[in-house]
Amino acid sequence: MPSPIRPTSSEARQMAARLLHDARHGALGVIDPATGGPMVTRVASIWIDDALHLLVSDLSSHTAALTADPRCSMLISDAAQKGDPLAHPRLTIQCRATFVEKPPLRDPWLAAYPKAKLYIDFADFRMVRMTATAAHLNGGFGKAYRLTPADLNQ
Amino acid sequence: MPSPIRPTSSEARQMAARLLHDARHGALGVIDPATGGPMVTRVASIWIDDALHLLVSDLSSHTAALTADPRCSMLISDAAQKGDPLAHPRLTIQCRATFVEKPPLRDPWLAAYPKAKLYIDFADFRMVRMTATAAHLNGGFGKAYRLTPADLNQ
Repeated sequence: MPSPIRPTSSEARQMAARLLHDARHGALGVIDPATGGPMVTRVASIWIDDALHLLVSDLSSHTAALTADPRCSMLISDAAQKGDPLAHPRLTIQCRATFVEKPPLRDPWLAAYPKAKLYIDFADFRMVRMTATAAHLNGGFGKAYRLTPADLNQ
Repeated sequence: MPSPIRPTSSEARQMAARLLHDARHGALGVIDPATGGPMVTRVASIWIDDALHLLVSDLSSHTAALTADPRCSMLISDAAQKGDPLAHPRLTIQCRATFVEKPPLRDPWLAAYPKAKLYIDFADFRMVRMTATAAHLNGGFGKAYRLTPADLNQ
Protein backbone atom coordinates (compact mmCIF):
# COMPACT_ATOMS: atom_id res chain seq x y z
CA MET A 1 0.00 0.00 0.00
CA PRO A 2 1.27 3.50 -0.70
CA SER A 3 2.05 5.66 2.30
CA PRO A 4 -0.69 8.19 2.98
CA ILE A 5 1.86 10.51 4.61
CA ARG A 6 3.00 13.53 2.58
CA PRO A 7 6.45 15.09 2.86
CA THR A 8 6.33 17.83 5.49
CA SER A 9 5.87 21.26 3.92
CA SER A 10 6.03 24.78 5.31
CA GLU A 11 2.27 24.97 4.76
CA ALA A 12 1.80 21.92 7.01
CA ARG A 13 4.06 23.40 9.70
CA GLN A 14 2.14 26.68 9.59
CA MET A 15 -1.22 24.92 9.79
CA ALA A 16 -0.06 22.93 12.83
CA ALA A 17 1.33 26.05 14.52
CA ARG A 18 -1.92 27.92 13.92
CA LEU A 19 -4.00 25.07 15.37
CA LEU A 20 -1.80 24.96 18.47
CA HIS A 21 -1.77 28.72 18.99
CA ASP A 22 -5.54 29.03 18.59
CA ALA A 23 -6.56 25.93 20.58
CA ARG A 24 -8.83 26.65 23.54
CA HIS A 25 -9.81 23.06 24.20
CA GLY A 26 -8.94 19.59 23.07
CA ALA A 27 -9.46 15.89 23.60
CA LEU A 28 -6.87 14.69 26.10
CA GLY A 29 -5.86 11.04 25.99
CA VAL A 30 -4.26 9.52 29.08
CA ILE A 31 -3.53 6.02 30.35
CA ASP A 32 -6.15 4.98 32.91
CA PRO A 33 -4.17 3.55 35.83
CA ALA A 34 -7.08 1.24 36.69
CA THR A 35 -7.10 -0.57 33.33
CA GLY A 36 -3.90 0.40 31.52
CA GLY A 37 -6.14 1.39 28.62
CA PRO A 38 -6.66 4.85 27.18
CA MET A 39 -9.19 7.40 28.46
CA VAL A 40 -10.18 10.55 26.54
CA THR A 41 -11.64 13.66 28.17
CA ARG A 42 -12.19 17.26 27.07
CA VAL A 43 -9.92 19.86 28.62
CA ALA A 44 -9.20 23.57 28.30
CA SER A 45 -5.78 24.49 26.94
CA ILE A 46 -3.59 27.39 25.93
CA TRP A 47 -0.29 27.69 24.10
CA ILE A 48 2.40 29.34 26.25
CA ASP A 49 6.19 29.21 25.87
CA ASP A 50 6.12 26.81 22.93
CA ALA A 51 3.87 24.22 24.57
CA LEU A 52 0.23 23.48 25.25
CA HIS A 53 -0.69 23.93 28.90
CA LEU A 54 -3.68 22.63 30.82
CA LEU A 55 -5.26 23.69 34.12
CA VAL A 56 -6.52 20.53 35.80
CA SER A 57 -8.27 19.64 39.03
CA ASP A 58 -7.02 16.98 41.42
CA LEU A 59 -10.63 15.74 41.50
CA SER A 60 -10.51 14.76 37.83
CA SER A 61 -9.59 11.31 36.60
CA HIS A 62 -7.16 12.66 33.99
CA THR A 63 -5.09 14.37 36.70
CA ALA A 64 -4.74 11.10 38.60
CA ALA A 65 -3.79 9.38 35.35
CA LEU A 66 -1.15 11.98 34.42
CA THR A 67 0.32 11.71 37.91
CA ALA A 68 0.71 7.95 37.42
CA ASP A 69 1.92 8.07 33.79
CA PRO A 70 2.98 11.29 32.04
CA ARG A 71 2.42 9.92 28.53
CA CYS A 72 -0.55 11.65 26.94
CA SER A 73 -1.99 12.95 23.67
CA MET A 74 -4.14 15.89 22.59
CA LEU A 75 -6.41 16.19 19.58
CA ILE A 76 -7.12 19.78 18.63
CA SER A 77 -9.00 21.21 15.70
CA ASP A 78 -10.14 24.46 14.23
CA ALA A 79 -13.15 25.48 16.30
CA ALA A 80 -14.04 28.26 13.86
CA GLN A 81 -14.74 25.83 11.03
CA LYS A 82 -18.30 25.09 9.98
CA GLY A 83 -19.66 21.94 8.41
CA ASP A 84 -18.39 18.38 8.64
CA PRO A 85 -15.94 17.96 11.55
CA LEU A 86 -14.44 14.98 9.73
CA ALA A 87 -13.25 17.35 7.01
CA HIS A 88 -11.77 19.95 9.36
CA PRO A 89 -8.01 20.29 9.78
CA ARG A 90 -6.88 18.71 13.03
CA LEU A 91 -3.71 17.90 14.88
CA THR A 92 -2.82 15.01 17.15
CA ILE A 93 0.13 15.58 19.42
CA GLN A 94 1.74 12.95 21.59
CA CYS A 95 3.26 14.44 24.70
CA ARG A 96 4.76 14.02 28.11
CA ALA A 97 2.99 15.92 30.86
CA THR A 98 4.84 17.80 33.58
CA PHE A 99 3.20 19.53 36.53
CA VAL A 100 4.64 23.05 36.60
CA GLU A 101 4.44 26.13 38.80
CA LYS A 102 1.16 27.98 38.42
CA PRO A 103 2.15 31.64 39.05
CA PRO A 104 4.00 32.34 35.76
CA LEU A 105 1.06 30.98 33.79
CA ARG A 106 -1.74 32.56 35.82
CA ASP A 107 -2.11 35.78 33.82
CA PRO A 108 -2.04 34.18 30.34
CA TRP A 109 -4.57 31.60 31.50
CA LEU A 110 -6.92 34.24 32.92
CA ALA A 111 -6.60 36.30 29.74
CA ALA A 112 -7.89 33.27 27.81
CA TYR A 113 -10.39 32.11 30.47
CA PRO A 114 -11.59 35.06 32.60
CA LYS A 115 -14.07 32.86 34.48
CA ALA A 116 -11.19 30.72 35.76
CA LYS A 117 -10.52 33.43 38.37
CA LEU A 118 -13.18 31.64 40.46
CA TYR A 119 -10.98 28.55 40.90
CA ILE A 120 -7.47 29.02 39.47
CA ASP A 121 -6.00 29.78 42.90
CA PHE A 122 -7.49 26.71 44.59
CA ALA A 123 -4.74 24.38 45.79
CA ASP A 124 -6.28 21.41 44.00
CA PHE A 125 -5.98 23.08 40.58
CA ARG A 126 -2.65 22.51 38.92
CA MET A 127 -0.96 23.56 35.70
CA VAL A 128 0.37 20.95 33.29
CA ARG A 129 2.91 21.50 30.53
CA MET A 130 2.49 19.17 27.54
CA THR A 131 5.88 18.62 25.93
CA ALA A 132 5.32 17.27 22.43
CA THR A 133 7.24 14.20 21.35
CA ALA A 134 5.49 13.65 18.00
CA ALA A 135 2.58 15.01 16.01
CA HIS A 136 0.27 14.04 13.20
CA LEU A 137 -1.56 16.62 11.11
CA ASN A 138 -4.69 15.79 9.16
CA GLY A 139 -5.14 18.83 6.97
CA GLY A 140 -8.14 17.42 5.12
CA PHE A 141 -8.69 14.50 2.75
CA GLY A 142 -5.35 13.20 1.46
CA LYS A 143 -3.38 15.74 3.46
CA ALA A 144 -1.71 13.75 6.23
CA TYR A 145 1.67 14.69 7.68
CA ARG A 146 3.93 13.40 10.44
CA LEU A 147 5.50 16.29 12.29
CA THR A 148 8.41 16.50 14.70
CA PRO A 149 8.50 18.66 17.83
CA ALA A 150 10.73 21.09 15.88
CA ASP A 151 8.06 21.37 13.19
CA LEU A 152 5.61 22.65 15.82
CA ASN A 153 7.70 25.65 16.86
CA GLN A 154 7.73 27.71 13.69
CA MET B 1 -11.92 15.98 49.29
CA PRO B 2 -15.58 15.27 48.51
CA SER B 3 -16.28 13.03 45.55
CA PRO B 4 -17.35 15.00 42.48
CA ILE B 5 -19.32 11.98 41.22
CA ARG B 6 -23.10 12.10 41.62
CA PRO B 7 -25.28 9.02 42.12
CA THR B 8 -26.39 7.75 38.71
CA SER B 9 -29.87 8.99 37.82
CA SER B 10 -32.28 8.13 35.03
CA GLU B 11 -31.61 11.62 33.66
CA ALA B 12 -27.89 10.78 33.44
CA ARG B 13 -28.58 7.46 31.71
CA GLN B 14 -30.85 9.16 29.21
CA MET B 15 -28.33 11.89 28.50
CA ALA B 16 -25.61 9.29 27.87
CA ALA B 17 -27.89 7.23 25.62
CA ARG B 18 -28.83 10.30 23.60
CA LEU B 19 -25.17 11.29 23.14
CA LEU B 20 -24.31 7.77 21.95
CA HIS B 21 -27.27 7.49 19.58
CA ASP B 22 -26.66 10.91 18.03
CA ALA B 23 -22.86 10.70 17.79
CA ARG B 24 -21.50 11.06 14.27
CA HIS B 25 -17.87 11.53 15.25
CA GLY B 26 -15.70 11.38 18.30
CA ALA B 27 -12.17 11.52 19.65
CA LEU B 28 -10.76 8.00 19.64
CA GLY B 29 -7.99 7.19 22.11
CA VAL B 30 -5.78 4.19 21.41
CA ILE B 31 -2.44 2.88 22.67
CA ASP B 32 0.33 3.74 20.20
CA PRO B 33 2.29 0.50 19.73
CA ALA B 34 5.46 2.51 19.04
CA THR B 35 5.50 4.29 22.38
CA GLY B 36 2.96 2.56 24.62
CA GLY B 37 1.45 6.00 25.21
CA PRO B 38 -1.99 7.21 24.16
CA MET B 39 -2.86 8.69 20.76
CA VAL B 40 -6.10 10.56 20.04
CA THR B 41 -7.60 10.95 16.56
CA ARG B 42 -10.98 12.01 15.19
CA VAL B 43 -13.15 9.26 13.72
CA ALA B 44 -16.63 8.84 12.31
CA SER B 45 -19.00 6.64 14.32
CA ILE B 46 -22.53 5.34 14.50
CA TRP B 47 -24.54 3.50 17.14
CA ILE B 48 -25.73 0.09 15.92
CA ASP B 49 -26.87 -2.92 17.97
CA ASP B 50 -26.13 -1.31 21.31
CA ALA B 51 -22.57 -0.29 20.49
CA LEU B 52 -20.59 2.45 18.78
CA HIS B 53 -19.08 1.30 15.51
CA LEU B 54 -16.27 2.82 13.46
CA LEU B 55 -15.24 2.41 9.83
CA VAL B 56 -11.44 2.57 9.72
CA SER B 57 -8.74 2.35 7.08
CA ASP B 58 -5.78 0.01 7.33
CA LEU B 59 -3.68 3.01 6.32
CA SER B 60 -4.52 4.87 9.52
CA SER B 61 -2.41 4.73 12.63
CA HIS B 62 -5.41 4.04 14.90
CA THR B 63 -6.23 0.86 12.96
CA ALA B 64 -2.71 -0.46 13.50
CA ALA B 65 -2.98 0.47 17.16
CA LEU B 66 -6.34 -1.29 17.64
CA THR B 67 -4.96 -4.38 15.95
CA ALA B 68 -2.11 -4.46 18.46
CA ASP B 69 -4.17 -3.57 21.54
CA PRO B 70 -8.00 -3.52 21.59
CA ARG B 71 -8.25 -1.18 24.58
CA CYS B 72 -9.59 2.18 23.49
CA SER B 73 -11.74 5.13 24.50
CA MET B 74 -14.11 7.55 22.76
CA LEU B 75 -15.06 11.07 23.75
CA ILE B 76 -18.34 12.19 22.21
CA SER B 77 -20.33 15.34 22.72
CA ASP B 78 -23.42 17.10 21.53
CA ALA B 79 -22.51 18.58 18.17
CA ALA B 80 -25.72 20.61 18.04
CA GLN B 81 -24.72 22.70 21.06
CA LYS B 82 -23.56 26.26 20.60
CA GLY B 83 -21.21 28.23 22.79
CA ASP B 84 -18.44 27.03 25.06
CA PRO B 85 -17.46 23.41 24.29
CA LEU B 86 -16.18 23.10 27.85
CA ALA B 87 -19.75 23.55 29.11
CA HIS B 88 -21.31 21.05 26.69
CA PRO B 89 -22.48 17.63 27.91
CA ARG B 90 -20.01 14.95 26.92
CA LEU B 91 -19.39 11.28 27.44
CA THR B 92 -16.17 9.30 27.74
CA ILE B 93 -16.50 5.60 27.12
CA GLN B 94 -13.74 3.07 27.66
CA CYS B 95 -14.04 0.13 25.32
CA ARG B 96 -12.58 -2.95 23.77
CA ALA B 97 -12.45 -2.89 19.99
CA THR B 98 -13.35 -5.90 17.87
CA PHE B 99 -13.03 -6.06 14.09
CA VAL B 100 -16.40 -7.31 12.82
CA GLU B 101 -17.96 -8.31 9.49
CA LYS B 102 -18.77 -5.31 7.32
CA PRO B 103 -21.86 -6.47 5.36
CA PRO B 104 -24.46 -6.29 8.20
CA LEU B 105 -23.35 -2.75 9.02
CA ARG B 106 -22.99 -1.45 5.47
CA ASP B 107 -26.53 -0.07 5.03
CA PRO B 108 -26.74 1.71 8.41
CA TRP B 109 -23.32 3.23 7.81
CA LEU B 110 -24.25 4.49 4.34
CA ALA B 111 -27.51 5.90 5.69
CA ALA B 112 -25.45 8.02 8.09
CA TYR B 113 -22.56 8.73 5.68
CA PRO B 114 -23.75 8.62 2.04
CA LYS B 115 -20.35 9.73 0.74
CA ALA B 116 -18.78 6.60 2.24
CA LYS B 117 -20.09 4.66 -0.78
CA LEU B 118 -16.89 5.79 -2.51
CA TYR B 119 -14.71 3.67 -0.21
CA ILE B 120 -16.72 1.46 2.16
CA ASP B 121 -16.25 -1.61 -0.07
CA PHE B 122 -12.47 -1.25 -0.33
CA ALA B 123 -10.75 -4.22 1.28
CA ASP B 124 -8.59 -1.98 3.45
CA PHE B 125 -11.62 -0.42 5.16
CA ARG B 126 -12.83 -2.36 8.17
CA MET B 127 -15.63 -2.08 10.68
CA VAL B 128 -14.90 -1.95 14.39
CA ARG B 129 -17.32 -2.62 17.22
CA MET B 130 -16.56 -0.71 20.43
CA THR B 131 -17.77 -2.72 23.40
CA ALA B 132 -18.04 -0.38 26.38
CA THR B 133 -16.44 -1.45 29.63
CA ALA B 134 -16.99 1.80 31.56
CA ALA B 135 -18.21 5.33 30.95
CA HIS B 136 -18.00 8.77 32.46
CA LEU B 137 -20.61 11.46 31.78
CA ASN B 138 -19.88 15.14 32.24
CA GLY B 139 -23.32 16.69 32.00
CA GLY B 140 -22.11 20.22 32.72
CA PHE B 141 -20.55 21.94 35.72
CA GLY B 142 -20.95 19.79 38.84
CA LYS B 143 -22.77 17.04 36.95
CA ALA B 144 -20.31 14.15 36.74
CA TYR B 145 -21.43 10.52 36.73
CA ARG B 146 -19.75 7.14 36.44
CA LEU B 147 -21.81 4.83 34.27
CA THR B 148 -21.72 1.08 33.75
CA PRO B 149 -22.17 -0.65 30.37
CA ALA B 150 -25.75 -1.50 31.48
CA ASP B 151 -26.44 2.20 32.06
CA LEU B 152 -25.63 2.88 28.39
CA ASN B 153 -28.30 0.58 26.99
CA GLN B 154 -31.49 2.27 28.17
